[in-house]
Amino acid sequence: MTVPARGFPVAEYAGRLARAQALMAGAGLAGILLTTEAEIRYFSGFQTLFWQSPTRPWFLFVPTEGKPVAVIPEIGADLMRRTWIEDIRTWPAPQPGDDGISLLIDLLAPHARRGARIGLLKGHETHLRMPLADYERLIAGLPGLGIVDATGIVRALRMVKSPAEIEKIAHICGVASRTFARVPEFATEGRPLDEVFRAFRRTCLDEGADDVPYLVGGADQGGYHDVISPPVARPLRAGDVLMLDTGSVFDGYFCDFDRNWAIGPASDAARRAHEVLYRATEAGMAAARPGATSRDLFAAMRAVIAEYDTGPGDVGRLGHGLGMQLTEWPSHAAFDETVLEENMVLTLEPSLSYGDGRIMVHEENIVVTSGAPRLLSARASAELPVIR
Amino acid sequence: MTVPARGFPVAEYAGRLARAQALMAGAGLAGILLTTEAEIRYFSGFQTLFWQSPTRPWFLFVPTEGKPVAVIPEIGADLMRRTWIEDIRTWPAPQPGDDGISLLIDLLAPHARRGARIGLLKGHETHLRMPLADYERLIAGLPGLGIVDATGIVRALRMVKSPAEIEKIAHICGVASRTFARVPEFATEGRPLDEVFRAFRRTCLDEGADDVPYLVGGADQGGYHDVISPPVARPLRAGDVLMLDTGSVFDGYFCDFDRNWAIGPASDAARRAHEVLYRATEAGMAAARPGATSRDLFAAMRAVIAEYDTGPGDVGRLGHGLGMQLTEWPSHAAFDETVLEENMVLTLEPSLSYGDGRIMVHEENIVVTSGAPRLLSARASAELPVIR
Repeated sequence: MTVPARGFPVAEYAGRLARAQALMAGAGLAGILLTTEAEIRYFSGFQTLFWQSPTRPWFLFVPTEGKPVAVIPEIGADLMRRTWIEDIRTWPAPQPGDDGISLLIDLLAPHARRGARIGLLKGHETHLRMPLADYERLIAGLPGLGIVDATGIVRALRMVKSPAEIEKIAHICGVASRTFARVPEFATEGRPLDEVFRAFRRTCLDEGADDVPYLVGGADQGGYHDVISPPVARPLRAGDVLMLDTGSVFDGYFCDFDRNWAIGPASDAARRAHEVLYRATEAGMAAARPGATSRDLFAAMRAVIAEYDTGPGDVGRLGHGLGMQLTEWPSHAAFDETVLEENMVLTLEPSLSYGDGRIMVHEENIVVTSGAPRLLSARASAELPVIR
Repeated sequence: MTVPARGFPVAEYAGRLARAQALMAGAGLAGILLTTEAEIRYFSGFQTLFWQSPTRPWFLFVPTEGKPVAVIPEIGADLMRRTWIEDIRTWPAPQPGDDGISLLIDLLAPHARRGARIGLLKGHETHLRMPLADYERLIAGLPGLGIVDATGIVRALRMVKSPAEIEKIAHICGVASRTFARVPEFATEGRPLDEVFRAFRRTCLDEGADDVPYLVGGADQGGYHDVISPPVARPLRAGDVLMLDTGSVFDGYFCDFDRNWAIGPASDAARRAHEVLYRATEAGMAAARPGATSRDLFAAMRAVIAEYDTGPGDVGRLGHGLGMQLTEWPSHAAFDETVLEENMVLTLEPSLSYGDGRIMVHEENIVVTSGAPRLLSARASAELPVIR
C-alpha cells in the first residue's frame, strides 16, 4: 500500500484559481469572498482542525485577477504562511468589536467604489460562517458593492476532482474497506454497540485513517430504524441487522460508505432487502456515465428499489458527491439535473423501507470515467453477510 | 471509574426551556429560531454526527410559551421523536426549492402578523447555518416580523453548566488526563509525529472517549511554532519540545487541554517557559472566583507571563468557556467583562512567545465554585516533563 503524498503541488492551486477566475470573469464578478473551511482550503491549502472552534471567523478573497488574499486571525498566520498564499492580513482575534470587518472593508472598498459585484456562497448546501451581525455591518460599510450568489461557480469547480484528489479519496476508501472487512472480528453477539463503534474507530486508525469524524449506524432485530444515530450500549443480539456508515478522512478527504451484517441468522426480509439494494447499486453503476444526470442515477436505482420497497423509505436522495466534505453536490434525486463528467467522485446510496418501519441503506463510492465507473470502495457482497 | 449516564432526564431540558423563556419574556421576544447544532441539542437533546453533512438545514423554534417545535429533514424524524420534543414538522430534504422555508413561514406567520419580534443568533461566536439566500427568502416571506439578536440570552444560559453537564465534562477530562499520562509510552525519539497523533487517538478511545475530533500540536527543536497545525511525518528528535492539545468528547461534551514534553534534554528556555506558564495557571486558578471577570483572569495570568514573554505571544486570549463545543463564551481577554458564576466550566490557557518565534501553551479545565475552582484536568507537572 502506497500512501499518497500529503498536500498538493502549487500547480494544483494555480489550476483551481485559473479555472475559478475564468468563470468569475464570465459572470462579471470582481472576486468571491469565502468564509467556510472547505472553500478556503480548496483555494489556499490551509488545513487545520481549528475550525471546530466557533470563536473566530476566517476569510479568503479570491479576486478575478491576482492571487487570493487571506484575512485571518493572527493565530493562523504561521500556518497560512506555509501555503502558496502571499497576501496575508491578520488581526488579534477574537476581537468582537471588529473581527476582521475593517480589514475586509479596506480590501473590498475599491471594488465597492466602482460599483463592482462580488460573489458569496448563498445557495444550496452552503452557509455564511461569520456572525450575521458582522455580515450586516460589512455590507453596510461597502455601499455600492453588488453581492451575488457564486455557489454555481464553486460547485462546478469542486464537483470535478483532480487526479491527486482522487488518489487521496481512493486511499481513504481503501482504509475503510479494510476496516469493514475486519468488523466480524469485533461485532459479535453480546458486544454493546457503543463498543463496536469504538473498536471500529480504533481499527480504522490502525488501517491508516487520519481520523474517523463520521461514524453512525444502528442494530436491531430484523433491521434498524434510522441511519443517523449515535450508538447505544445495547448488546448485539442474534437476529439483529447491524449497519455501520463511516466518513473517515485522509489528508482532508473523505470516504463515505456503509456495510450491513446479520448477527446470526438473517430474516428473509432483510436478506431480500440487501439483495435488492445490491442490484440497485449495480444499476447505478451502469448508469454512471459522462452525459447522464444525477436524476438518471436516481431513476436507475429507484426502479430496482421499487421491486421491494413497501414504505416511503425516503432519505431524500440516493447518493451524492464526495470529497473535502462528507457530502457534496450533486444529489442523486429527481430535482438534480447535474450532468455527470469524468472525474466526479460520487456515492451511490440506495435505501429502502421494509417490514415494520425498518430501513436498509447500501453505499459505494465511485469515480466517473469515460467508461464504466471506477469503484473506490471494495464492493459489498451480493448477499447480506452473516456474523456468527 | 463510573461512566456517567448518557443523555439527560427531561427535567434538564424543561429547566433550560423555563430559564430561556423567562429571559425571552423579559426581552419582549415571541421566541428564538435556532439553526446550529449545539443550540438545537441544548434545547431538544437531538444528538447526531449527521450535522457534518452540509446538505440539510435543521431548525428548532423555541417559543416564549409552550415547548420547542422542530422543523427538520425527514431523515431525522425518528431520532427527534426519541427526544422530549413533540411537535416535529418534516420535509423530504434535500429539496433546494423549499428546504424547510415554507414550513418555517407557516410556523412564524402568526408572530409576523402581529408584528412580534423573534430572536436569532447574530452575535460573536455564532453563525447562521442555512443558505443565506434561503434566509433572505424566509425574511421576505414574513413581513412585519422583527428579528433581533438573541446571542445574549443563549450565551447566558449555556455558560452556566448543570451538575449533569459538569459530570460529563469531568468524565472526558479524566479520559484525556489518563491518555496524556500514557503519551511517554508512544511519543519517543524517532517516532513520526503523525504516528504519535494516531496513537494518541487510539489510546484516548481505549480510555473511554467517544471520539477525538480535535487533536492538534507540534514538535520542533527547542519549541514549536504554532498551535493549530495538523501533524507532519517528521520523526521526534532529541531536543524537541512536543505539544499535544485535544478536544475529546463524551456524550457530546468536550474537554480541551494540552500537555508539553521535552524529548530528551530540555533547553533552559523551554523549561523556563513551562515553569512560567505553570505559575500563570496557578494565578488564573487563584483569580477564578464568582464575581471576578474573564478580564480579571486574563490580567492575573498575563501578569505572570510578562515576567518572561519576549514577543507578541498573542493567541488572542488566555482561555475560554467549554462544554458542548470545543470553545464557548466567555473569552479570558481584556475585552471580556463577563462576570464569573458558580458552575461555569472554563479553560485556563496561558501562552507565551520565547526564543526565536517559538510559542508554548499550557491549559487546564476548571469549574468555578463558591471557593477554589475544581480542577477537571489532572494538573500538569510544575516542571516540563522529559521523555527519554
